Amino acid sequence: MSSGPPDLSRLSLNQISTNNCTLEQAAEACSRQGICWLGAWRHKIQGSPAKAGQLIRDAGLRVSSLCRGGMFPAASAGERRQRIEDNFRAIDQAAALGTDLLVLVNGPAPDRDLDGARIMVKEGIAAIQSYARRCKVRLGIEPLHPMFAGDRSVIVTLEQANDLAEAFDPECVGVIVDVYHVWWDPHVYEEIRRCGKRILGFHVSDWLVPSPGMLMGRGLMGQGVIEIHRLRRAVEAAGFDGPIEVEVFNEQLWQTPVDDAIRQIKDAYLQFV
Amino acid sequence: MSSGPPDLSRLSLNQISTNNCTLEQAAEACSRQGICWLGAWRHKIQGSPAKAGQLIRDAGLRVSSLCRGGMFPAASAGERRQRIEDNFRAIDQAAALGTDLLVLVNGPAPDRDLDGARIMVKEGIAAIQSYARRCKVRLGIEPLHPMFAGDRSVIVTLEQANDLAEAFDPECVGVIVDVYHVWWDPHVYEEIRRCGKRILGFHVSDWLVPSPGMLMGRGLMGQGVIEIHRLRRAVEAAGFDGPIEVEVFNEQLWQTPVDDAIRQIKDAYLQFV
Repeated sequence: MSSGPPDLSRLSLNQISTNNCTLEQAAEACSRQGICWLGAWRHKIQGSPAKAGQLIRDAGLRVSSLCRGGMFPAASAGERRQRIEDNFRAIDQAAALGTDLLVLVNGPAPDRDLDGARIMVKEGIAAIQSYARRCKVRLGIEPLHPMFAGDRSVIVTLEQANDLAEAFDPECVGVIVDVYHVWWDPHVYEEIRRCGKRILGFHVSDWLVPSPGMLMGRGLMGQGVIEIHRLRRAVEAAGFDGPIEVEVFNEQLWQTPVDDAIRQIKDAYLQFV
Repeated sequence: MSSGPPDLSRLSLNQISTNNCTLEQAAEACSRQGICWLGAWRHKIQGSPAKAGQLIRDAGLRVSSLCRGGMFPAASAGERRQRIEDNFRAIDQAAALGTDLLVLVNGPAPDRDLDGARIMVKEGIAAIQSYARRCKVRLGIEPLHPMFAGDRSVIVTLEQANDLAEAFDPECVGVIVDVYHVWWDPHVYEEIRRCGKRILGFHVSDWLVPSPGMLMGRGLMGQGVIEIHRLRRAVEAAGFDGPIEVEVFNEQLWQTPVDDAIRQIKDAYLQFV
């Protein structure tokens, strides 16, 4: 377990951190700046995922993950079936894009029923697991911060994500640890240890104080109050050695010219992750 | 355990729900509307707390709690002593105001150190417990929503509040259950059962979707996604039968003439709590 800076070759630019760029602009800027990985979003892939994957590979990059599947809870059986079908498409897209990891965001609850929605999440993953395995795409359950329980995710702690993941094949279903979502949790370090090899992704950003808002409250690493370095050492001690996605929703960063933005991301990564 | 509406005689108007009113205006409006309790904030008591208490009693009301003490974590020993002295003053104010309950909000952490700050909270409560007991003021540890971990409270779950409370005299230290802060928690019902008689206060509001923001994201009961009625039944099953504070930070409610606002609060209370 090293406590020095992480290897630059593990840095992955999550597309959302350069939200105003096209996929091509982001990939080319990564290439110029020596970044080896890119984390993709479904709504930000223009055209076919196979072509997007080719574009990314042509720039010398690999895709660390595709965001997002999940969203299983819905009020009617018909809607839930549609959500599951959408997840089949997301798995196809991940495979075509050339990544073996689909990030699952799981919520919100219809009709105020958190317990019921949490069961729907488990049923949803059960319904897509074998298809994902056939496509060689792993499913990463990402707990979101509890402030998203109302509109995005009924899975709000790493403990819940671990409980869910343990119900499935460890080769296929794991968890994503995003410091912005889990840093506040009194059980975060014991749950990271519990994850072990199930950690499929590690996302970094920082929590700004005062916070500019729920969605847009993230800053670059070092600008906020999260013990990022400690969390990185913890996921590594648990066995994670994959790409580290920098995922920053921040208006100021989005306004920054892309090469400058990526330089700032690299500096923050080397200094604070 | 009743599942009907709660008794109107248990409704307490938390002062913040009518934030644009003076204490006198709020108390008189409560009196006109048949409300029996008022929850007070230190920064909203004009002049001496003894006079404020008299004013409230003259309006025919009782004070359900005073908000807030706590805020123990600080970077230096000198600052931590100052915080403890401020809590002595808060206990004096609660006693003078005529309430036996001081609400404790506990945070944030200096220097990113959540673990250290959580220890400071325990030390802080230990330092004020016997003074509070002598003044016949109970201390209610209120876990805040994890989205306040960065700027207000390192105590973010009911489990933490219970762990803390159990380290102290049950006659003196308990917990506050605020639905807005705890509703997302997968362990909320088991932790409410665990609280038992330690529940010293129950606060209601609702979580709006989409949320207008962290602090101002609350709505009247029924306007959001929280299972308020289920939570009320749970705290009552645990043994709580005290006043229920309606604590709504909501710009629109604050702009509403006070008698209308209190009528809306009463209706929402009877229908959704």
